[in-house]
Parts: sequence; C-alpha cells; structure tokens
Amino acid sequence: MATITAVETRDLRFPTSRELDGSDAMNPDPDYSAAYVVLRTDEGPEGHGFTFTIGRGNDVCVAAIEAYAPMIVGRSVEEVVSDLGGFARRLGGDSQLRWLGPEKGVMNLALGALVNAAFDLAGKRAGKPVWQLLSEMTPEQITDLVDWRYLSDALTREEALEILRAAESGRAERTARLLEHGYPAYTTTPGWLGYSDERLVRLAEEAVADGFTQIKLKVGADVEEDVRRMALAREAVGPDIRIAVDANQRWDTAEAIAWMNRLAEFDPYWIEEPTSPDDVLAHAAIREAVRPVRVATGEHAQNRIIFKQLLQAGAIDVLQIDACRVAGVTENVAILLLAAKFGVPVCPHAGGVGLCEVVQHLSMFDYVAVSGTLDDRVIEYVDHLHEHFVEPVRITDGRYRAPLEPGITAEVRPDTLLRFSYPDGPVWAGPTPEETQ
Amino acid sequence: MATITAVETRDLRFPTSRELDGSDAMNPDPDYSAAYVVLRTDEGPEGHGFTFTIGRGNDVCVAAIEAYAPMIVGRSVEEVVSDLGGFARRLGGDSQLRWLGPEKGVMNLALGALVNAAFDLAGKRAGKPVWQLLSEMTPEQITDLVDWRYLSDALTREEALEILRAAESGRAERTARLLEHGYPAYTTTPGWLGYSDERLVRLAEEAVADGFTQIKLKVGADVEEDVRRMALAREAVGPDIRIAVDANQRWDTAEAIAWMNRLAEFDPYWIEEPTSPDDVLAHAAIREAVRPVRVATGEHAQNRIIFKQLLQAGAIDVLQIDACRVAGVTENVAILLLAAKFGVPVCPHAGGVGLCEVVQHLSMFDYVAVSGTLDDRVIEYVDHLHEHFVEPVRITDGRYRAPLEPGITAEVRPDTLLRFSYPDGPVWAGPTPEETQ
Repeated sequence: MATITAVETRDLRFPTSRELDGSDAMNPDPDYSAAYVVLRTDEGPEGHGFTFTIGRGNDVCVAAIEAYAPMIVGRSVEEVVSDLGGFARRLGGDSQLRWLGPEKGVMNLALGALVNAAFDLAGKRAGKPVWQLLSEMTPEQITDLVDWRYLSDALTREEALEILRAAESGRAERTARLLEHGYPAYTTTPGWLGYSDERLVRLAEEAVADGFTQIKLKVGADVEEDVRRMALAREAVGPDIRIAVDANQRWDTAEAIAWMNRLAEFDPYWIEEPTSPDDVLAHAAIREAVRPVRVATGEHAQNRIIFKQLLQAGAIDVLQIDACRVAGVTENVAILLLAAKFGVPVCPHAGGVGLCEVVQHLSMFDYVAVSGTLDDRVIEYVDHLHEHFVEPVRITDGRYRAPLEPGITAEVRPDTLLRFSYPDGPVWAGPTPEETQ
Repeated sequence: MATITAVETRDLRFPTSRELDGSDAMNPDPDYSAAYVVLRTDEGPEGHGFTFTIGRGNDVCVAAIEAYAPMIVGRSVEEVVSDLGGFARRLGGDSQLRWLGPEKGVMNLALGALVNAAFDLAGKRAGKPVWQLLSEMTPEQITDLVDWRYLSDALTREEALEILRAAESGRAERTARLLEHGYPAYTTTPGWLGYSDERLVRLAEEAVADGFTQIKLKVGADVEEDVRRMALAREAVGPDIRIAVDANQRWDTAEAIAWMNRLAEFDPYWIEEPTSPDDVLAHAAIREAVRPVRVATGEHAQNRIIFKQLLQAGAIDVLQIDACRVAGVTENVAILLLAAKFGVPVCPHAGGVGLCEVVQHLSMFDYVAVSGTLDDRVIEYVDHLHEHFVEPVRITDGRYRAPLEPGITAEVRPDTLLRFSYPDGPVWAGPTPEETQ
C-alpha cells in the first residue's frame, strides 16, 4: 500500500518581464511563475502539479499549498486516487482554511495545484493521460468528482448524469477522431501589447501559415492604438481568420461598449474579459450591447458559483476555463457540466507557464464524454515556455495533438526546477541582462 | 519627515475551539485568529491593524501582508496619511499581486489589515478616532478614498458627492447625538450552535436585560433542532425582541426557502448568509421567496463589485460589511456609498477577534456623514476576546459608545501578543487543557 510521504513545494519564476512577453493592459510586466508541488510517495509514481501566477506573491501561493499539506501527508495513495472528488472536497471543505476564501483567490489557486497533482498521480498509476482517465469513467464516477453544493438551482446531479449518458455511445468514435485529428487551437502569440507593429504583423502572418484559424489581440490601454493595431492585424490575416480581442478587465460597462463600437468595423470575434471577472451583471449588459461580437470570460472567474451565474444570466457566449484558478480538475468538471447544460462552448484560457499542457486534458475530456462536439471550441495557445516541461504540448496544423503520456503533463524538467527557483536559482541570483550589458 | 521603517507581522491565535465559542453550521471548531501588522515609524505614532481568520491558514495571511511590505517600507508617513485612497489603490493595483485575486480572498484580507493600519496611523497623528477623522473629511476627500473602477453602472463619483453633500449640514448634530447616545447593537452571544439549551436561554434572557433589542441564532445544521432552539429563544425573549438567524452559507436556494418556511412561525427578523456569498442570483431568488423575512449577507462578500451586484439585483434587505475582509476602510467607504444610493441599511458583521473594535468606526461614520440615519441599523456584538485590546469597545444599554481614543482601536495588548503568538506563545507551546486533565 503506497503512501503520500511528502508535499514538496517550489517557487518557480521566469523573468518574462525582461522581454514584455505576456504584456497586456492590466499586466504590463509579468514574470510568469508557478507555485509548484510534488506529491511524493514511498512506492510507484509521484504526482506533479502547479498553479500559475505572474510573479510577486507566488510565495503566498506556496504558503497556501503548504497549509493543506498536513491533510495530505500520510494518506494512502489508493484512497486518494480512488476518490478524487472526496480528496478535493476534504481539502476545500476544511472549515478553518475555507474561511480564507471561501472557494476563491489564493486558496483556490493552491487547490488547483494540489488537486491537479492528485490527478497526475492517478493518471500515472493507471498508465493513462488524464483526459483518457476521465473519459473512461462512468457517468456516476464523473458526477462523484463534483462538489454539488450551490449548484442545484442550475444543474442537478440527475441532469448531469443525463448529459453524460447521452454522450456515452459516441465516446469511442470521438476518441479515435481526437487521436487522429487533434483539438483545434487559436494563438495569442502575435497579440501582446508590448510588441512592435512589425512583430505583430509578422507573427499574425506566421499564425495563419501555421494553420491557425483564430488569433487574439490584447486591447484596452489606448483606443486609437487598438484601432490601428486591429487594422494591421485584419489586413495581415485577411477576412476569414477570426480575431478575438482581450481587454484583461480594463473597462467599466459603458467604456467597454464604446470601445467595442470603435473596433466593430474590423469584425472582432469575441471580446474577452471586458470588465471585472466578478461582475456577472455587467457582462450581461455588455453582451446585450455588443452583439454580434461575442462576450468571453473565465480565466479569473473564481469558482463554479460565478460560472453558474454567468450562464444563468446569459452573460457570456464563450466560457473560458483555466486549469489552475478554480481548485483543479474536479471544479472544472462541474463547470464543463454547467456549460453543457446551457449549451455554451468552452474555450480554455492557456499560455502562461504550463497552462496549455494541463488544460488540454479538460477540453479533450469535454469533447469525448461531455459536450461531444468541437463546434466553436478552441484551446488558447501561446508559443512560450513549453521547453521547460518534460512532455510539452504538441501543436501541428493549428491543433493540439492528444497527449499519450500518463498523467496531466504538468511535470517541469529537473534542470528548470534548479535554474528558475526563486530567489536562489541562477537566473535570479545572477546578474540581470541589463547589468551584464 | 517621518518614514515607515518596517511592516511587522505576527500570527496570533486564540484557542476558542476548546470551548465551542463561535461554533456554527459551517465552522464547527474555529480558533479565532488575527494576522496582525504594525507599521513602524521613525517618529511619532505607529499604525496597528489585523485581519481576522479562524485558525489554520492565518500564516498564509501573514505571508500575504509581507508580500505587500516592500511597497510600504521607506514611504513617507505624511504622504501615506494625506492620500489614504492612493495608498490603498497602489497596493491593490500592483499588477503581479492583483493576479492572485483579483481583489478577493487572502490578498484582500491582507489589504484589510494594512489599509486599516494606515488609517490607525492617520487617526493617531491627527489625534482623532477614525470615525471622526472620516466624518470631518470633505465630500471630495471622502470620494478620493474610493477605487471607482467597476462602479459607474451603479454609482458615479458625482452621485456619491451629492449623497455626501446632502448629509453635510446634519453632521454636527448627529455627532453630538452619537456621543451622547451611542450606536445600537445586537448580540450573537447567546446563539452559537455548540451551546446547550440552558446556556442559550440564560444568555438570551441576559441580552434582553442588558438592553439589547435584537439577538441572533446560528442555524442550518439540523432543521428540527433549529425549530426547537428558535422556539426556546422566542419564549425567552418575548415577541418584541428581534431574532435574526444565520445559516453561514449552509444551503442551496431551495433548501434555504424550505428551511425558512419551517422557522417562519417564530418570526425571524433576517436570514443571514443563506447560501454562497458569491451567489447574487440565489440571494435574489431567496429574498423573493421568504418575504417578509429579510435577507442579509456580506461578511464573506469579497469586494465592492459583489456588493454592487447584490444591490443592483435587489438581492438583500440588510448589507453586512466586515472591517477586514474587503481591503479595509477605503473599500468599505465605497460600499457604504453604494448602500446609501440604494437605500439599504448597513448592519456590520462583527465578533471574532477585534472586529467590533474596528467596524464601529465605519457605522459611526456612516451615520454622521453618509446615510445620516440609525433606522434599522445595528452593529453586531459578541461579548468575547475584548480584553485583549488596549481600547476595547464599550457597550452600555445595548449600544456601542463612540470611541474617543485616536486611531482605529485595533491595537492588541503587548502581553496578548506574547501569550497567543502561534506556534511559539505559551498558550500554544504549553500543554492543552485535555493534556493537563
């Protein structure tokens, strides 16, 4: 009987602000970071997970992961992997730690790392990638993953079972199709605010040449600049490529509507995070006003309760899950089921550090066993920092190729763990690029 | 020119779970705790603040406070106290730290401690209690405290200025009345779930004898038990005393409605936290169904954006601010202005450790300079842990007496700081009561 012997953490940070990769209207100089965790065991595989941050405060997430550790160390691996929903609910339900959210912010980011690490462990023990592990569960096993509290006014367990049973007969066929054709992606690589016009145009053209049918531009800092950049991008990609825009929460309601009116002539496909991720009613008002432009949000939506309301209020056209923000796979299963109930496509947030690697499992599970469709569904892709992962995502012809390695593909390379540890790794302890010039 | 020389933190925990003080349906065994902070200066007074938690994870809040420290140490005291809104917005707006919320959870709890400590410093330098400091500001100075982002669809700065100007002429008279008569309180002391029937009845009778006109009972664990306890309480206090009930987020919508139907015969005054504090739409549905029982929430509402929506959706009859959860005085000023705009009474959450001491300043400011009324307004009171404060609240005849000491009355006694420090203070490092039996 294997036992979890330790919850090891590490504060990993990448000095991305030095190149303005990842720059947007709210986040001008992020240092992409991961609060990384390994569930060590005395026998068999280990579980790897992380949560994504953009620099300062990554240590606070590490402290939060460690606050859950006493509830995990000493547990039987078999008990954890055979009841992953119970594992997540026990951690999330600890009454003293719950007070610090509840179910939001730093504590949910920490749970994202831990719950995903438990799924990594489960996948590795089963010898299956997590998308497959999930897709082979029975409808009852899938609904057992979910914390049903606060959902019944929108989705009951019985309704979820019906959705899952309806998708059961097509699972084998869709799995085969997924393995052959992959899952559609879109790319944000061209669109960072800090990039020059030349870089924007070149990367947009490359994206089309690489087979992407959708790109995304950051907007929201200066409307005249956005009009100019959007015109450049539209000219670069032509009329048939979708261009989404992303304001990263920069606006109030009226400002969002006015700004999108200015961009309308360039046919934006969706406006992402027009305002606060907490503001269900504002998203509903914006959606009403900017049709036919779609409204998308979710990368900062804190939990299933906010997603439930976004759907109940008809506030979004596109639901963007994040692999780490909402307490991990189990909470995301609840959100996928809610989206299926309301018929809203899920297009995950990714990029950052390792978010592509982890979130692909959720979309692939959604396709095989929940929504059963790829219509209007794309996973975000950013060509950045993948080299630090043991099993980086594989993108060809603008599509994610299904990972075949066991686990959740969150494992960071050992040399990266050493080099990018904060503040003592050589990348941080050594001289900065400016200092060496 | 005085400078802030250090941000000192301390993890304070009180072993309240040993007596079941504070026990409710979601929090069976809290250890009331404070992540405590002192803004040290090289000249003149210091600023004291804290955020309240219920035990485990208090260290995560300490880590979060420390994450903000580099933005504070070395600043001019004069600069901080002359632009408290700017101070709060700079901390809250740090893009890398904002990612960890945004504006919620652990990071907002930490900001609650720090921003309140800055107000303590400002009050002490001005020689005024914070309620008075705020009440003597001009309408323009008060609106400068607020982060206006995300509010304009419900309240503009101009509308806030109108509200504040309308209240200006009555300030002197209301200040005099406040100093003479105090501010009404209600008590939760009798109502903890872990208390015996005898203790419940005795404490309820004492509350009436002490001049309180409202008490509160915890409910939500077992409906038959709640019916029985509610009957006992109603018999103890008679028909004219208001009995509020508090479910501490225990229910889904339909369950909340059914449960309140069972309790209706005992005339509950309000139902507090019937469901998730994130669930604006569920509160609106519950309110519609349980009239004339009022719906109250807010102690876990994460920020002004959630409060704004609760008001926009007509989801609450009673708005319950918390002194520490929402990034401190400045965010609470925004919430008081929103409540005044919508005409909803503010009845603060208090109890815990020191929450009564701090939140009284906000209600008194609201009375003098914002809403201008005491109608249906009461501050929660729990007779617990006040002895640890240098300037504990003074309650007589069921009313808070206005504090006259400069600052925000958050300062903990030096001997308490030593005895209750976690994990090394003698209360924690010594043998537990069970071990000495």
